[in-house]
Amino acid sequence: MASVKMIEDGAATAEVQAVYEDIKKTREIAYVPNIWKTLATHPPTLKRIWLGIKTVMAPGRLDPLTKEMIAVAVSATNNCDYCIRSHTATARKLGMDNEMLGELMAVVGMFNQTNRLANGYQIEVDEQYLKTE
Amino acid sequence: MASVKMIEDGAATAEVQAVYEDIKKTREIAYVPNIWKTLATHPPTLKRIWLGIKTVMAPGRLDPLTKEMIAVAVSATNNCDYCIRSHTATARKLGMDNEMLGELMAVVGMFNQTNRLANGYQIEVDEQYLKTE
Amino acid sequence: MASVKMIEDGAATAEVQAVYEDIKKTREIAYVPNIWKTLATHPPTLKRIWLGIKTVMAPGRLDPLTKEMIAVAVSATNNCDYCIRSHTATARKLGMDNEMLGELMAVVGMFNQTNRLANGYQIEVDEQYLKTE
Amino acid sequence: MASVKMIEDGAATAEVQAVYEDIKKTREIAYVPNIWKTLATHPPTLKRIWLGIKTVMAPGRLDPLTKEMIAVAVSATNNCDYCIRSHTATARKLGMDNEMLGELMAVVGMFNQTNRLANGYQIEVDEQYLKTE
Amino acid sequence: MASVKMIEDGAATAEVQAVYEDIKKTREIAYVPNIWKTLATHPPTLKRIWLGIKTVMAPGRLDPLTKEMIAVAVSATNNCDYCIRSHTATARKLGMDNEMLGELMAVVGMFNQTNRLANGYQIEVDEQYLKTE
Amino acid sequence: MASVKMIEDGAATAEVQAVYEDIKKTREIAYVPNIWKTLATHPPTLKRIWLGIKTVMAPGRLDPLTKEMIAVAVSATNNCDYCIRSHTATARKLGMDNEMLGELMAVVGMFNQTNRLANGYQIEVDEQYLKTE
Repeated sequence: MASVKMIEDGAATAEVQAVYEDIKKTREIAYVPNIWKTLATHPPTLKRIWLGIKTVMAPGRLDPLTKEMIAVAVSATNNCDYCIRSHTATARKLGMDNEMLGELMAVVGMFNQTNRLANGYQIEVDEQYLKTE
Repeated sequence: MASVKMIEDGAATAEVQAVYEDIKKTREIAYVPNIWKTLATHPPTLKRIWLGIKTVMAPGRLDPLTKEMIAVAVSATNNCDYCIRSHTATARKLGMDNEMLGELMAVVGMFNQTNRLANGYQIEVDEQYLKTE
Repeated sequence: MASVKMIEDGAATAEVQAVYEDIKKTREIAYVPNIWKTLATHPPTLKRIWLGIKTVMAPGRLDPLTKEMIAVAVSATNNCDYCIRSHTATARKLGMDNEMLGELMAVVGMFNQTNRLANGYQIEVDEQYLKTE
Repeated sequence: MASVKMIEDGAATAEVQAVYEDIKKTREIAYVPNIWKTLATHPPTLKRIWLGIKTVMAPGRLDPLTKEMIAVAVSATNNCDYCIRSHTATARKLGMDNEMLGELMAVVGMFNQTNRLANGYQIEVDEQYLKTE
Repeated sequence: MASVKMIEDGAATAEVQAVYEDIKKTREIAYVPNIWKTLATHPPTLKRIWLGIKTVMAPGRLDPLTKEMIAVAVSATNNCDYCIRSHTATARKLGMDNEMLGELMAVVGMFNQTNRLANGYQIEVDEQYLKTE
Repeated sequence: MASVKMIEDGAATAEVQAVYEDIKKTREIAYVPNIWKTLATHPPTLKRIWLGIKTVMAPGRLDPLTKEMIAVAVSATNNCDYCIRSHTATARKLGMDNEMLGELMAVVGMFNQTNRLANGYQIEVDEQYLKTE
């Protein structure tokens, strides 16, 4: 149970309900996920975050599945249960199978390991890595 | 300066030097990056990590550039300077340009934001996200 | 269930029970929260942490509600369920409503986002930010 | 040096320069901080983040100094050098002195400590903390 | 419930079952813990991680209990429930009692606190700490 | 350079100077490390943290070197440069050599890896791990 009382779909102000309808249409789902019903307790945040996600996740130079797998990587690194579950489910809908998830997790695990080795030994950056573009 | 004295290329035991040669050949570079010269102070770790990375980063269901960008995402989330620099440089060699980096960072930033909103409000996972495959 | 057996209120040594009484009186609550019943398995830690919190949370240049909201911000950033719940409940008792929580979460989310953009791009600190006081 | 080449003030496209002017006017500063000159390498992110921050940091139920100190708390918890420096400098401009910073850091440190005690012992949330509002 | 369907002991391919048998024999347990039944959905990761852990946790200059307590310290710092529970249970089997756990948690909590004070104040490293060996 | 002006040894109030003398005597060093000269800008925090560390690091069921290596593990996991450097230097003084550091880092790296695999796959805790003592 969230730490605030969620605003249910159909029981919201017109402003919030409009965001709910856009979420359901854009995501092609019949329900409003808990994160949006929770953020709706602070409407400016609901609108800002939803519009931000729509922009960021739109197809661009990276395809939607790649973006969703990056979201899984971030969420696994941060240990955010809700986020891991929702991004993993969305990535599966976009075509990720167990083998792709296996490779994704292997990369996430490996570099969380080497991140600590690099930090722990206080390794200096090689000058070859400092070029910008 | 690392917190141990690095083992220089050419001044290593045969066992360590063999790893150095494999690194230079596999990565198509003429020098040994500092992380390997540092891990060489504990040879079993040098060998285990290098073999692990070779395995994990080999082409599979995910291509090498996607894997490298996931490594950037993990390293930016963890704030590991060495790792951000080295994975960004490698991703650039594999074809990432500023616009792709811009999209990557936008995704990383956005989901570090929503991770804290999901945590901070203690949002319960929707049952729709709990299916395994 | 904690990973140690908690020491119940009324079943503690005199030394631990004295801390329990101080907690109930200071916090104006009729029960001992689980964190204290758990730390009581190591009495020196129970006493040190309780005295530390009493000192740190006492009114000073920052008022108690501001301090409690900072505690929520830290706990949401670290994803500590117990801490988010307990600090959010305490902040509500001190007057935080849903709109204040909304603004707090918006700030926490936003700067978790920009933290990763600053890290990910390895942005150098502007000299204007380096003055000490 | 950032991992991309920054877009300098005065050398930007009209779209980016308009954001730069808004930043300087809103913040009452004569220069463009490095974070914005870096994000300008991906204009949609520059605009989205700047507008987001303007919205989130505007006075509301929480005053600007409180919001800025929460930003310091998040940045110290995440260990983001750029962010700690920039938010600390801004908080000082808004009136934070060394004693207020001392109390802020004391709270941040204390709850990073108790967060790990709560996690480490896997303490269960008291039912008294589960009420929503 | 994990986000993939676990491979049960006795229902695995020969390759996976061989790892399961090695786990049960090495750990002197009669069942296969969930982490291995989950990693088995990607056999190369199962094998790589299991062999890595066997190597890393073998007695060396540090004894197995010290290594297991370090694993608890890392897991508490990262807030990984599964990891805290499994490493705490294993450390108890190796002889850790409540008082040792109390000291361990006190150290973990204290340095999570001072880590944020060092970061938050951006304290420069003393030259006395920069010697390598 | 820290974000506050440090209080130099010999230029402090009597209250602060007394802590400085205790630090130098307890640690058997001739100078006051930067962290203490920084915390001295908020004397109640200086005293509370110093007394806390003296208590926590005193020999108990765990020996001082084990405690110091746990501090390195926490600091490497959090990526706190100051902390990694100071705890590594102190651990060396207490007898840690490169091979012990190598094993320590191998454990820290490995479980930062498995922490993310456990989180990323959302692995459920085995009931065998839930016993308290």
